[in-house]
Amino acid sequence: MKPIRRDDLVYLDNNATTRADPAVVAAMLPHFSERFGNPSSAHGFGAGAREAVRFARRQVQALLGAASEQEILFTSGGSESDNTAILSAVDVMAGRNEVIVSAVEHPAVLSLCHRLEARRGIRVHRIPVDTLGQLDLDAYRAVLSERTAVVSIMWANNETGTIFPIDDLAEMAKKVGALFHTDAVQAAGRLPLDLKATAIDMLSLSAHKLHGPKGVGMLYVRHGCPFSPLIYGGRQERARRAGTENVPGIVGLGQAAEIARISVSEDMPRITRLRDRLERGLLQSIGGALINGDPSRRLANTSNIAFEGIESEAFVALLDRQGIACSSGSACSSGSMEPSHVLKAMMVPQDFLPGAVRFSLSRDNNEADIDRLLSVAPDVVASLRGQTFEASVLQPAGLAHV
Amino acid sequence: MKPIRRDDLVYLDNNATTRADPAVVAAMLPHFSERFGNPSSAHGFGAGAREAVRFARRQVQALLGAASEQEILFTSGGSESDNTAILSAVDVMAGRNEVIVSAVEHPAVLSLCHRLEARRGIRVHRIPVDTLGQLDLDAYRAVLSERTAVVSIMWANNETGTIFPIDDLAEMAKKVGALFHTDAVQAAGRLPLDLKATAIDMLSLSAHKLHGPKGVGMLYVRHGCPFSPLIYGGRQERARRAGTENVPGIVGLGQAAEIARISVSEDMPRITRLRDRLERGLLQSIGGALINGDPSRRLANTSNIAFEGIESEAFVALLDRQGIACSSGSACSSGSMEPSHVLKAMMVPQDFLPGAVRFSLSRDNNEADIDRLLSVAPDVVASLRGQTFEASVLQPAGLAHV
Repeated sequence: MKPIRRDDLVYLDNNATTRADPAVVAAMLPHFSERFGNPSSAHGFGAGAREAVRFARRQVQALLGAASEQEILFTSGGSESDNTAILSAVDVMAGRNEVIVSAVEHPAVLSLCHRLEARRGIRVHRIPVDTLGQLDLDAYRAVLSERTAVVSIMWANNETGTIFPIDDLAEMAKKVGALFHTDAVQAAGRLPLDLKATAIDMLSLSAHKLHGPKGVGMLYVRHGCPFSPLIYGGRQERARRAGTENVPGIVGLGQAAEIARISVSEDMPRITRLRDRLERGLLQSIGGALINGDPSRRLANTSNIAFEGIESEAFVALLDRQGIACSSGSACSSGSMEPSHVLKAMMVPQDFLPGAVRFSLSRDNNEADIDRLLSVAPDVVASLRGQTFEASVLQPAGLAHV
Repeated sequence: MKPIRRDDLVYLDNNATTRADPAVVAAMLPHFSERFGNPSSAHGFGAGAREAVRFARRQVQALLGAASEQEILFTSGGSESDNTAILSAVDVMAGRNEVIVSAVEHPAVLSLCHRLEARRGIRVHRIPVDTLGQLDLDAYRAVLSERTAVVSIMWANNETGTIFPIDDLAEMAKKVGALFHTDAVQAAGRLPLDLKATAIDMLSLSAHKLHGPKGVGMLYVRHGCPFSPLIYGGRQERARRAGTENVPGIVGLGQAAEIARISVSEDMPRITRLRDRLERGLLQSIGGALINGDPSRRLANTSNIAFEGIESEAFVALLDRQGIACSSGSACSSGSMEPSHVLKAMMVPQDFLPGAVRFSLSRDNNEADIDRLLSVAPDVVASLRGQTFEASVLQPAGLAHV
């Protein structure tokens, strides 16, 4: 096999993490060794750092359509934001001891909920989804009550891209007086957001999913929403999150948010076309394949395709040898070899479940990337199917499952 | 007043934050936009990121003298590390509901303890210090018991540099079966550390205090120490801290640790001489000044000097106009205008308390920096003392307090 040159690498795992935009890195750079002050310091070095953080806060506010920059609370990432939101809500909503989530949340929500059940006596309702990954609204309605402290439902699913009707879900939660949090880690930068027009109380975002740096994220906390910190100490972030601010990271998130605000409208049509080209190409050339997710309400960049009779880990490994990066399930659970909790909740057929592969695109991708994938994937699937290969599976299954 | 050129700026606030070493930034840079994978990903991008994190883990292990790289848990910074350590200990030490801290801990410890008292029914013992800032060992001994879940005492104080006898304190905690945590945020990179030779169970460190980037830190957790996470979700950091690893930040911390390991022996003698030059110069030229801290057990880089009859905030502001950065108290509480809890605990005389200024050096400083300070500070103090200026205060007070 000929060696793969760096230029040949194709990265189709943008829901796991994205390449930081060079403009983001350029914005961060001066804040490491030149404008390196602590924002809490009274001198000029501190003032420069404070100003940089404030500028970034406004950039993020603009991406979210938040009413005020004071609603933006910087954190270390999506998992910290999710944990902070739910723990805060359980803490401040005295007398309410139930939490509602979807069955397909990110582990940052599901693991915490498991812990709350086991150790804090919280009752957790996990709302099931249908075969498209859409929420069972009747089940949701049925468990909403005055016992609900908080609802935490993701804006878009990280594995399938299925988009939930967050505005409606938040309105419904408000009617019973519950707080509403959404993990928008995959939605931010991919869907237009206008939080001031919604009933959402809290929203989590991670910089590295939108071409910002790893190690920084954000929790939106609506003005007036009761709040209890996760990390105590200094009075940073209006005493809501202690610890010296990650100034370069925050500046990077701000710059990434500013670019993303434009990119949502400018790049997404092209990314949608790339994704459709990818799906059409794979379904035409590989039989026994089905697309998981809601075709009519799905992130433009995400494609989850299950190939009958193969193991996705083997597929990912063989593609990796060709310099193409994609994922079996989410990065957070990859390597675990357990079937995705998301696809299980969607009742993906047993023959397809082990062979589900996620391709996730970004503005960094182009047609050549897709063509490289299409030139390689059919052979890889065929080789993995090996002896059990049958003529019948050559028939395109199309959107059989959806 | 002539404008201050960037080259003229003198930064003497290295306990608030340090300038990231250019070699640290150079090490981080490829991990933003080239080697940008998620360490949890199964493909080559992920493998590259995993390898980078592992390399950094070993660099930090070497700085700490830890027995194993698996004892290194990366976090978002010192405050998260402190909160994680104490909350974990309270959680895992079933049947023990007391916590022991010093009265001069960082707010990340004291604020959390206040919360634990108010909301979790934990009894917190705050051990007093003497006028040098040294711990009252009899008081410590008196409260250690089988009810003690955890002792959390800093290695060196951020305001005065006073070093506590951590090895002994940890041994004493062990004898009653308590866990021992130390906030080593100011000690790391300034004192030689060899954790495997101690009884310390957990230790907090922050990258930006040792010429690493902001937004990343570390919690050392000794092998076998029971542990409960602060942030739940994916199984990163051996399931002890969820969230995609801050790869560039971790790489930066690793590089900073590697440089610091050398710097502790190579730069500290020079820094000590600079600090002594600073103190001698100020005490010779300014009357009514005293040094706060333990002269025989103090960080080489830290000088806390109280000037009688002035407000330190005004001093810091006037020095800032001259391009010299120093601090009144810690950055975390600066601007609060409340007297330092550390200096109050040390019984600093009322006439001196409002005028306490912290000068904190690093390997970035040189003699010219000190001479700039010495050329400016006497006039600033004199102008602040204004009308109440008396001939008597011109007599150097020397180490009056210590």
